[in-house]
Amino acid sequence: MSDHLLPLINEALAALPYPQAPEGLYEPIAYGLEGGGKRLRPTLLLLAYKVFGQNPTEALPAALALEIYHNHTLLHDDLMDQAPMRRGRPTVYRKWDANTAILSGDTMLIMAVEQMSRLECRASHEVMALFVRTMKEVCEGQQYDMNFERMADVSMVEYLEMIRLKTAVLPACAAKAGALIGGADEAAAQSLYDFAIHLGLAFQIQDDYLDVYGDPKVFGKSIGGDIVCGKKTYLLISALNKAEDQDKARLKALIGDKTIAQDEKIKAVTALYDSLHIAEEAKAAIDRHFALAAQCLDQVKADPERLQPLRDYAESLLGRNV
Amino acid sequence: MSDHLLPLINEALAALPYPQAPEGLYEPIAYGLEGGGKRLRPTLLLLAYKVFGQNPTEALPAALALEIYHNHTLLHDDLMDQAPMRRGRPTVYRKWDANTAILSGDTMLIMAVEQMSRLECRASHEVMALFVRTMKEVCEGQQYDMNFERMADVSMVEYLEMIRLKTAVLPACAAKAGALIGGADEAAAQSLYDFAIHLGLAFQIQDDYLDVYGDPKVFGKSIGGDIVCGKKTYLLISALNKAEDQDKARLKALIGDKTIAQDEKIKAVTALYDSLHIAEEAKAAIDRHFALAAQCLDQVKADPERLQPLRDYAESLLGRNV
Repeated sequence: MSDHLLPLINEALAALPYPQAPEGLYEPIAYGLEGGGKRLRPTLLLLAYKVFGQNPTEALPAALALEIYHNHTLLHDDLMDQAPMRRGRPTVYRKWDANTAILSGDTMLIMAVEQMSRLECRASHEVMALFVRTMKEVCEGQQYDMNFERMADVSMVEYLEMIRLKTAVLPACAAKAGALIGGADEAAAQSLYDFAIHLGLAFQIQDDYLDVYGDPKVFGKSIGGDIVCGKKTYLLISALNKAEDQDKARLKALIGDKTIAQDEKIKAVTALYDSLHIAEEAKAAIDRHFALAAQCLDQVKADPERLQPLRDYAESLLGRNV
Repeated sequence: MSDHLLPLINEALAALPYPQAPEGLYEPIAYGLEGGGKRLRPTLLLLAYKVFGQNPTEALPAALALEIYHNHTLLHDDLMDQAPMRRGRPTVYRKWDANTAILSGDTMLIMAVEQMSRLECRASHEVMALFVRTMKEVCEGQQYDMNFERMADVSMVEYLEMIRLKTAVLPACAAKAGALIGGADEAAAQSLYDFAIHLGLAFQIQDDYLDVYGDPKVFGKSIGGDIVCGKKTYLLISALNKAEDQDKARLKALIGDKTIAQDEKIKAVTALYDSLHIAEEAKAAIDRHFALAAQCLDQVKADPERLQPLRDYAESLLGRNV
């Protein structure tokens, strides 16, 4: 299990040194990092490390780098999306201002690189190159996501490529980096990368699914948010692909309608999804990517017992063993 | 001389690979990097390299890293300062929008790290650590500069520390990195760092001076811009330190006056500066830092002939041999 890793990660994050001055630069960074969250990326990194390596503290700088980088993306994304809340608290640009969010976010990105540059192992150079390539891909994913807002039609291929970049490559970088630091060979490290890509895709499609079909108490966000703002999700794109002429026109009209009451819009779109069996389609896609993730793990030449915590973690992330 | 380095730098920048997709992410980066500029930091880096090393292309990734990082700071600073123009062209956030400036700027920072991580020499690790520390300092300098806008009084010590961080540490990082990559020992590399700190301070104080006393045709910006927006500059802080009660009150009132015509404000503040001999004080400070920079070069144990291009470059930067 991964329960013992969370305190290790949170303690290391809390022990990061913050200069006292200048006022206004480092408080928002500490605020962002203390906000909790699942610590998914550093956990994956350390679990992948432990398949091959004996001393997880050796991989800790890389784990911190990924968590700090992830929180940097949240900080800047929240500003770009004008999102007021994150994990039940005001976002940095709301609590402070836009300039603070820009500059503190930049500093976080630098701190992430700083942590990664502290890595001292044979794979340091390869891991840094992987990290840099991954960060560029995450920016590309965010750009695609912003471009989609202005596009009338987004294909499923385009959508999956966007979430691969925006969501999946960072956990994949975590899994591969952990493996490499632990001493895995290239083939095993690449299998762990692919495992986390499929896990990331399954997780994002599940997030889209839960936005419509989730239990609001468990999901932590209000239901139907994506429908209200007309976001291109796995469900919407599936529905537009599947619907015949009349339903398709109705769905497009509903999504673009800014005058309709929010709950009415959610109800009408959900009814259309239901009639098209979109929930089943999304669940099938989640199952498919989860199965592909498991297959990737099967290809790793390592003691199955040492791989088991990664299997357990993947299951727990998708709510399959709770 | 450094003339032959500029084509080398510009060609390497122009040869950077830009992915075609996603639309909107890489064009602003190419736009920022093709905008010209003095290429001061990569030039300093390569000149410092050539004091010790034989093969400047070995240092090119670090030179590109610093130039890309510098342009990243311009891109984000222009957004934070809401500056409409840069080098005679609209700034990125004006030509595109704020979100484009944020995300393309983030990508530039990652590209800078990417270049630095390509460095392959004995000093690679030390240079990366220096680069990371420097980038954090530049963010701190920008934060101090923004904080100063809201502060009634800024001391000369605070001001000099701000410009050291915001302006001087990046050329200093360039000079030291070039020396280290070339094979310099720590003492020589540190002397080159200190040289560029003083050069950077002299250059920034000269920039403040030229804003009031420069020839608009040569300076490239309209005269008095700092006075109009009440910016805390070397001249203003000197004047507030030197003025007696009545003049001090008048200067503060003038700077804070938003109703007065711009040219009248510039004329009145300049007249006060003149009566307090602030131009002479600024020129003395520039001379002082220039002399300190030269002394730092004197301490470098290297063939004086190989140091001469750095001396020439420092002089040309401050307009002393043209």
